[in-house]
Amino acid sequence: MSAQQPKDDQETKIIQQEGLKAQLAQSIEAQALKVRQLKADKADKTEIDKEVEALLSLKKELALLEGDKKADSGKKSTKPAKTSFTLKTAKGTKDYNDKDMAIREKVFNTITKVFKKHGAVTIDTPVFELKEILAGKYGEDSKLIYDLADQGGEECSLRYDLTVPFARFLAMNGKEYPNIKRYQIAKVYRRDQPAMTKGRMREFYQCDFDIAGTYDAMIPDSEILRILCEALTDLDVGKFTVKINHRKILDGIFEVCGVPEANIRPISSAVDKLDKLPWADVKKEMVEEKGLAVESADKIGEYVKHKGGRDLLEMLKKDTVLMANANAAAGLKDMETLFDYLEIFDVMDLMSFDLSLARGLDYYTGIIYEAVTEKSAPPQLAEGVKPKKKEGTDELDESTVGVGSIAAGGRYDNLVGMFSGKNKKGVPNLQIPCVGVSIGVERVFSILMSKQKSTEIKSSETEVYVISVGDGLLKERMAIAKQLWDAGVKASYMFKNKPRLDKQFDVCEKEMIPLAVIIGKDELEHGQVRIKDMRAKDESQGGGMTIEQTDMIQEIKSRLELMK
Amino acid sequence: MSAQQPKDDQETKIIQQEGLKAQLAQSIEAQALKVRQLKADKADKTEIDKEVEALLSLKKELALLEGDKKADSGKKSTKPAKTSFTLKTAKGTKDYNDKDMAIREKVFNTITKVFKKHGAVTIDTPVFELKEILAGKYGEDSKLIYDLADQGGEECSLRYDLTVPFARFLAMNGKEYPNIKRYQIAKVYRRDQPAMTKGRMREFYQCDFDIAGTYDAMIPDSEILRILCEALTDLDVGKFTVKINHRKILDGIFEVCGVPEANIRPISSAVDKLDKLPWADVKKEMVEEKGLAVESADKIGEYVKHKGGRDLLEMLKKDTVLMANANAAAGLKDMETLFDYLEIFDVMDLMSFDLSLARGLDYYTGIIYEAVTEKSAPPQLAEGVKPKKKEGTDELDESTVGVGSIAAGGRYDNLVGMFSGKNKKGVPNLQIPCVGVSIGVERVFSILMSKQKSTEIKSSETEVYVISVGDGLLKERMAIAKQLWDAGVKASYMFKNKPRLDKQFDVCEKEMIPLAVIIGKDELEHGQVRIKDMRAKDESQGGGMTIEQTDMIQEIKSRLELMK
Repeated sequence: MSAQQPKDDQETKIIQQEGLKAQLAQSIEAQALKVRQLKADKADKTEIDKEVEALLSLKKELALLEGDKKADSGKKSTKPAKTSFTLKTAKGTKDYNDKDMAIREKVFNTITKVFKKHGAVTIDTPVFELKEILAGKYGEDSKLIYDLADQGGEECSLRYDLTVPFARFLAMNGKEYPNIKRYQIAKVYRRDQPAMTKGRMREFYQCDFDIAGTYDAMIPDSEILRILCEALTDLDVGKFTVKINHRKILDGIFEVCGVPEANIRPISSAVDKLDKLPWADVKKEMVEEKGLAVESADKIGEYVKHKGGRDLLEMLKKDTVLMANANAAAGLKDMETLFDYLEIFDVMDLMSFDLSLARGLDYYTGIIYEAVTEKSAPPQLAEGVKPKKKEGTDELDESTVGVGSIAAGGRYDNLVGMFSGKNKKGVPNLQIPCVGVSIGVERVFSILMSKQKSTEIKSSETEVYVISVGDGLLKERMAIAKQLWDAGVKASYMFKNKPRLDKQFDVCEKEMIPLAVIIGKDELEHGQVRIKDMRAKDESQGGGMTIEQTDMIQEIKSRLELMK
Repeated sequence: MSAQQPKDDQETKIIQQEGLKAQLAQSIEAQALKVRQLKADKADKTEIDKEVEALLSLKKELALLEGDKKADSGKKSTKPAKTSFTLKTAKGTKDYNDKDMAIREKVFNTITKVFKKHGAVTIDTPVFELKEILAGKYGEDSKLIYDLADQGGEECSLRYDLTVPFARFLAMNGKEYPNIKRYQIAKVYRRDQPAMTKGRMREFYQCDFDIAGTYDAMIPDSEILRILCEALTDLDVGKFTVKINHRKILDGIFEVCGVPEANIRPISSAVDKLDKLPWADVKKEMVEEKGLAVESADKIGEYVKHKGGRDLLEMLKKDTVLMANANAAAGLKDMETLFDYLEIFDVMDLMSFDLSLARGLDYYTGIIYEAVTEKSAPPQLAEGVKPKKKEGTDELDESTVGVGSIAAGGRYDNLVGMFSGKNKKGVPNLQIPCVGVSIGVERVFSILMSKQKSTEIKSSETEVYVISVGDGLLKERMAIAKQLWDAGVKASYMFKNKPRLDKQFDVCEKEMIPLAVIIGKDELEHGQVRIKDMRAKDESQGGGMTIEQTDMIQEIKSRLELMK
């Protein structure tokens, strides 16, 4: 795993190991978050110690696995391979099992509910696009795009995000959709160095909400920010802040600080690193790598250290040099309007107007924002250290990397025009202004997984297990299950002719099934069944309640109603 | 579009055309189904004529588009290209707009509800797998697998179905999942010749439910068939039949008819074509292409013409030659057990025991099945004609192709073992028997789209539109929307400072929003709002009802409750 792409065939032959590693890495991340949370909550020391011990033991296990692998690859084919192929998922991808998916579904449902409350529709675009659609949209990161093999026909690539395909959709269907509020929850693909423990994968979900259309200033922008706050609140990710800035204000600052126009985007992308690097390093990059004058850099340094709310806005409005710049003045006017609207929506106190926020992508044209939670903030934010590389390798030491922002977005008014072609005067044939947000669901998922034990997650929704005592009674169990299904009750039974009673009880416990219908020869002869609350620990309740079979559905339904 | 992969660059340059064509093709399919349905329902002749006319006009439009394209590609760059790239989705893929997705969501929710009622969990596997995982699993069709480009690192391919990745998952996680009922709804990829009007795409959804685990005979099998019947009934796809057969019965028949062992799978795949070709053609293939003796073919012909229920089972049990064959006897015993269970589940009358059903895939080992609806049956079933190719091309004339089965599946007991490796005795290290079904959701979707007009599909769920009369009142509309959101009501308003009243009403009508909260300066001064039922056509109701603003939420909620 030391080089970007392992050349050693032997190394890729390790059966199941990658899967185990990924699983383990995820557990470590979850456990680490739990420890951090306990410390933040100032929990009881013995409790913290216990969880720290669990964390260390997980790390040891992972280290052992890594060690094993190194040992194995050192041996070189002294043992024959156990199978002729590698039993694993592709690098940077993983399976999500039933427990993962139960949490994932909860996350998606919560977010979708918020989106629908705001009138959003959903659209679906293909997983791959023509290569030329994606070309030139992602700057340096274009090298991370997955291409499909040339098997004759068109050149295609896997989508890198959901924004570019959405802009392509609008350019193609703009007549029918001059405006749309749409969300899309789907997987995207990046040939990045995976950092499994941080949930940074090569295949991962994005969850986008965008408002497209020509509207009055800051109205859709404020709704997007309200939606973001509603979603993060409902997701229960803990305390969060939305850092917010405006590209025009930033451009204005760069202009008044004397940055030459051609150097504005490079300087902006240096500023973007301020959440990961101290100012001294960013300044060094500006001056030494990007050739900016020291006095310009120092002036920028003065501006970008500011953060606040209305107070910062008022302060900047008094800066006559800045206000004389057309870009800055326009940006500040937008911010003032926006803040008015955010106050009506009661989310202004969740915002932090932060002049150091720059966002990497080139296509933003207006407000930009990024949500961070206490749990998603990288450790070096506090410690002021850089992410470290593992000794002698190119790989990042994951313990030094934060999971970063939990959501981000901004206004991009020119992207659709890039697809629509231009008329003779060089004006795009179609221009649809857009503003949107992308919620980092993988990070939300990590945070939520850290809150509960895997054994406590109920993945199947089964409500009733049909159990027989004694003689198997398969057909009788089937008949009862059928009755339950017909009544809309979620029911299962054991797929054995003569199942053991204890095994049937085990299933109820393992799958956390709340109710059992128990049948025996005697009961059936009297047209009766027993109903047992499987969560009742009280021994006097042990046998359950015997009722007439004709009353079964009604009894089950009223019990399920009570459990809701 | 005439060759498999157009070589002509010019041809791929036509902006939007492919997208329009796909859209149009889908409308044609939907309209054709509607006409068939009207004819089947013996509807009023004028009504049928009207719909036929609409169909013809759609076809004409498509023909024009095709013509345009040919004309364009004939001209060869006499006009400059409007843009420097192609604005379309990749061949065989399409976007699904808000209306498509509304129907799609309904389909997925209906199916998922049935799966969950039967205790299923869901898992998610990556869109691409290591190439070697898919290799050798699909026979001839392996050529249709999409590969990723070699960009350094592992060789990967897009998944071709959900069954092989599921078997790979079980082989990797068998210890944790010795048994599982899982469903997965996800996209799969095939480099097939697209037939857009039949919903046959290169990217399409599969919807799989499988039961893995070592259980007693036919118990999970019967539950799968019950689930299939529940799902198709709840989806409201019209009358359907589940054709059912058993691989061991088929093998037994082939053996007693004198087919050499090595020729059994080829002969089986010839039989599989009986739903598309007349017997004479299938016999010809057996004898001339596959070298089977004529008398063997004739014997097979006698068997495979039978279909029925219990009666056919009883008839075969009296066939002493067949019953002396171990495979056939075992298969018939399974069928008898299965029929008992299907009767308990009350779905036996939906089954057709059909000896001509063979199913293409090699990996089936037990019962096999295929659901067909009246609407999904290919026209040539009735007319006895082969699918035709368009004159002078390799492309199928889509009007001669049926959409085929609407769901299919079977038992596959050895697939997991193919991934687990073998011990010294050649026995797989892990063997997990499986039975499953795949519902052809794209076909379900086509059938449902044909039932309703696109303009009648409500894609956003907005319940209330906040409207101002007169002076814009933007901030006041925002405040009311916020109040509604806080109460969980789905609400929107127009993103304009001073929207026109008629434009606001237009949105309500277009988006089928049932309620409006209307505010004006006068009302607000008196702390009041008006509530209007937008679906009420009664003019006396025109102005809506004026109420105190403090009562708004309660009034809205009780009205929404009544609308449910």
